[in-house]
Amino acid sequence: LTKNHISLVLTLDSMNPNVRRVEYAVRGPIVQRAVQIEKELREGVKKPFTEVIKANIGDAHAMGQKPITFFRQVLALCSYPDLLEDNKFPEDAKKRARRILDACGGHSIGAYSASQGIECIRQDVARYIEKRDGGIPSNPDNIYLSTGASDAIVTMLKLLVCGEGRDRTGVMISIPQYPLYSAALADLGAVQINYYLDEDKCWGLDVTELRRALNAAKQHCKPRVLCIINPGNPTGQVQSRECIEDVIRFAKEENLFLMADEVYQDNVYAKGCKFHSFKKVLFEMGPEYSSSLEMASFHSTSKCYMGECGFRGGYMEVLNMDPEVKAQLTKLVSVRLCPPVSGQAMLDLVVNPPLPDEPSYASYLKERTAVLAALAEKSHLTEEMFNTVPGITCNPVQGAMYTFPRITLPQKAIAKAQEEGQAPDMLYCMKLLEEEGICLVPGSGFGQKEGTFHFRMTILPPTEKLKVVLQKIRDFHLRFTQEFS
Amino acid sequence: LTKNHISLVLTLDSMNPNVRRVEYAVRGPIVQRAVQIEKELREGVKKPFTEVIKANIGDAHAMGQKPITFFRQVLALCSYPDLLEDNKFPEDAKKRARRILDACGGHSIGAYSASQGIECIRQDVARYIEKRDGGIPSNPDNIYLSTGASDAIVTMLKLLVCGEGRDRTGVMISIPQYPLYSAALADLGAVQINYYLDEDKCWGLDVTELRRALNAAKQHCKPRVLCIINPGNPTGQVQSRECIEDVIRFAKEENLFLMADEVYQDNVYAKGCKFHSFKKVLFEMGPEYSSSLEMASFHSTSKCYMGECGFRGGYMEVLNMDPEVKAQLTKLVSVRLCPPVSGQAMLDLVVNPPLPDEPSYASYLKERTAVLAALAEKSHLTEEMFNTVPGITCNPVQGAMYTFPRITLPQKAIAKAQEEGQAPDMLYCMKLLEEEGICLVPGSGFGQKEGTFHFRMTILPPTEKLKVVLQKIRDFHLRFTQEFS
Ligand SMILES: Cc1ncc(COP(=O)(O)O)c(C=O)c1O
Ligand SMILES: Cc1ncc(COP(=O)(O)O)c(C=O)c1O
Repeated sequence: LTKNHISLVLTLDSMNPNVRRVEYAVRGPIVQRAVQIEKELREGVKKPFTEVIKANIGDAHAMGQKPITFFRQVLALCSYPDLLEDNKFPEDAKKRARRILDACGGHSIGAYSASQGIECIRQDVARYIEKRDGGIPSNPDNIYLSTGASDAIVTMLKLLVCGEGRDRTGVMISIPQYPLYSAALADLGAVQINYYLDEDKCWGLDVTELRRALNAAKQHCKPRVLCIINPGNPTGQVQSRECIEDVIRFAKEENLFLMADEVYQDNVYAKGCKFHSFKKVLFEMGPEYSSSLEMASFHSTSKCYMGECGFRGGYMEVLNMDPEVKAQLTKLVSVRLCPPVSGQAMLDLVVNPPLPDEPSYASYLKERTAVLAALAEKSHLTEEMFNTVPGITCNPVQGAMYTFPRITLPQKAIAKAQEEGQAPDMLYCMKLLEEEGICLVPGSGFGQKEGTFHFRMTILPPTEKLKVVLQKIRDFHLRFTQEFS
Repeated sequence: LTKNHISLVLTLDSMNPNVRRVEYAVRGPIVQRAVQIEKELREGVKKPFTEVIKANIGDAHAMGQKPITFFRQVLALCSYPDLLEDNKFPEDAKKRARRILDACGGHSIGAYSASQGIECIRQDVARYIEKRDGGIPSNPDNIYLSTGASDAIVTMLKLLVCGEGRDRTGVMISIPQYPLYSAALADLGAVQINYYLDEDKCWGLDVTELRRALNAAKQHCKPRVLCIINPGNPTGQVQSRECIEDVIRFAKEENLFLMADEVYQDNVYAKGCKFHSFKKVLFEMGPEYSSSLEMASFHSTSKCYMGECGFRGGYMEVLNMDPEVKAQLTKLVSVRLCPPVSGQAMLDLVVNPPLPDEPSYASYLKERTAVLAALAEKSHLTEEMFNTVPGITCNPVQGAMYTFPRITLPQKAIAKAQEEGQAPDMLYCMKLLEEEGICLVPGSGFGQKEGTFHFRMTILPPTEKLKVVLQKIRDFHLRFTQEFS
């Protein structure tokens, strides 16, 4: 064995060091332990609970949310076109399926598509954006379909990273952040520039903080990119129009490429909050901005009311991109041939749902409205409940699918975690998992101000189950506080 | 505009230089021109032909091949489970669909799966491999499902690349190669080490040539990886058992990580040829090899008899991988959450098709056999036809889906191409496209011995159309030769 081991080609020491540096907490040790516990339960091991509730990931269907019927009818028709003869399927579903199939090589979703995505779907995306943004034009040539938003975000970052040493590209990301960003930056060997969201102002973004972070970073790298997530993951914050204007002005002044992650664009629950796309605000600020700021914005089939994560559908729209660079982008995406065609089809339905005069409109609207209403209810419930617990404070869940409450941990618990070389909120979440079967992600996985502790919980469990979860976390928190004081 | 341009964040000069170096001929300038020509035809522009025939890419459905009915029935059932109540669907299709849905979060293919892939599908893959390899055990923990084989290949290469300067990882790839490899190596900044296949020996691989290439490369990099494609793309070669043994011995002696791209494992047509998996040969060489050689092998839903490219299904099996590195691999794939679930479902059907006692067996077998028989016929037809043309010589298409004939180009054509800064076979293919509407990929996109010229053509067009294509290429070749002499 030793002899073998000495001669291994690929070891921790000889692997890509950037990959080693990658961290991805949303599927980290907590989740691995949760999967183990589920197995133990199935094998009859006795636990203080009968099921693991996974509130660690924004995966709506896994939490019992039902897909939009119309979307799945079209997908079935595309998969098995013999069903086009079946009169159980509504005409509008058949129409959509025929249109998608006509745009596929050999009329099959089993053919590779153009690498940038099927042209008529890119046209539908452009029309969707135009409608969303009150008529501001969108060019299908600027749309790139992708394998989930993840793929497009990583591709865009890859294009942007260059230079060595002090010239290495710096990328500004919020703290707390969605850890895809830090993972991609580690993988690419780019410099991560943290700007902190203000927990005391409902996780608001302040340009003063952006400027502080940028100026500090200029000492050791070349800041070129600013990433924004709105509505926010894990914060649940929805940015105001003024805030977005400030960000755009800042990006322009500082010559930054703007990446706007807007995968939660339909997930807005709080009164007085509204989703404003960066693109719309950019154009409304006038040609001085709209004709020069380089930007990419991202959307996905995974979130909003549809929650179709498994289909890995998504797109990005690029604006003011140098045509030569765009050609390079097109070349780059062609290496992996194309995004999954069923994901492209799903995206087409998201951007081109039934119209008011079509037979499936009523059921589509009903299903969509029910999902969004339930999410809104759960966002309020979560905030209210957590704020009754001494030692937990929680900002309103204005949008997205998460709450990121702050937890006060007893000194003894912090000391114990440090002894064990663990983040204190990891200790907390691991204990919660072992004792209550609830799977959350510790705040340390997203980044947080030094000395503060949080966890991220999705608001996706069905209302009745969510109430149980909240109650259990409450009980656990009180017990934990007592145990360590 | 000039002012704008000066201040652009992202330009050719300031973008990722590795991405700039990426080339991907299968979807390069020829294909872009083909798409344009198609548009022109639709707009009524007169051409010497009425349609563009795309023989540039291994995309079976786009060439009219029909999907396997059973596979698509299951996909429709998974997409829209209400159909499980429909008695038009056979019981075995329903059984497969139920099994897949039961393994999905919330019984929906819209949920994210485990990042490594759905567990029961990984089990099915392992059983498939065991059956294929005559009982040699396969562990589902070693299976990673992927977004097409492309994704797994790039991921594996990424893991393997490290070091700077003379310590930079070198990766051996065949010339001619499938350009995913050179593209991924450019992107990762790894060193590409070319070994040449022997056109005079039916594109055979010779260990002497591997050794020559390796020793030369040791002067300037650290060779750590050997990539093999069998059956070969673009060569159509099928490796003999002896050849595979030699390669394995070489990899072990030289301490190389072996990557075996076996996406064409069912595509073998020539008499006396047989597919041998690297894993099977490795194990039959005894524990000295099987317990230590580090290896990954790749498969896909895109090729063989099913040709389901758009689903982006695939897997890799890793062998003798350091468990710590495997943990890193699992972490890395988790960043993109999961491969498309419908692609995973498609893969499940490929590795677990109807059994002889199930109702869909007969139709499955019939459809599968018909596709493979037609491909075999077309492989022979292509070889025979090309070898009747003076100035074209063509090895037998033993397997895969391509022919890579050598073309003799007149000196004047070579000179003209060089004047225009173009590869001579690019000039040839571009002219063929403009004059005959046939889209091929020039040999220069795959690599070839200095001073030789080739093109790659798929054998996928339906037989009658293929005959026309071959005839047109023949006529064109004669005309081209005359024109430039
Ligand atoms: C902010 C944000 N961006 C991007 C993604 C990626 O989603 P997908 O790749 O499924 O589209 C997520 C997923 O949770 C997210 O929360
Ligand atoms: C040799 C080889 N490997 C890998 C691939 C990638 O195929 P996919 O990503 O569709 O599975 C191809 C596609 O043509 C190929 O020819």
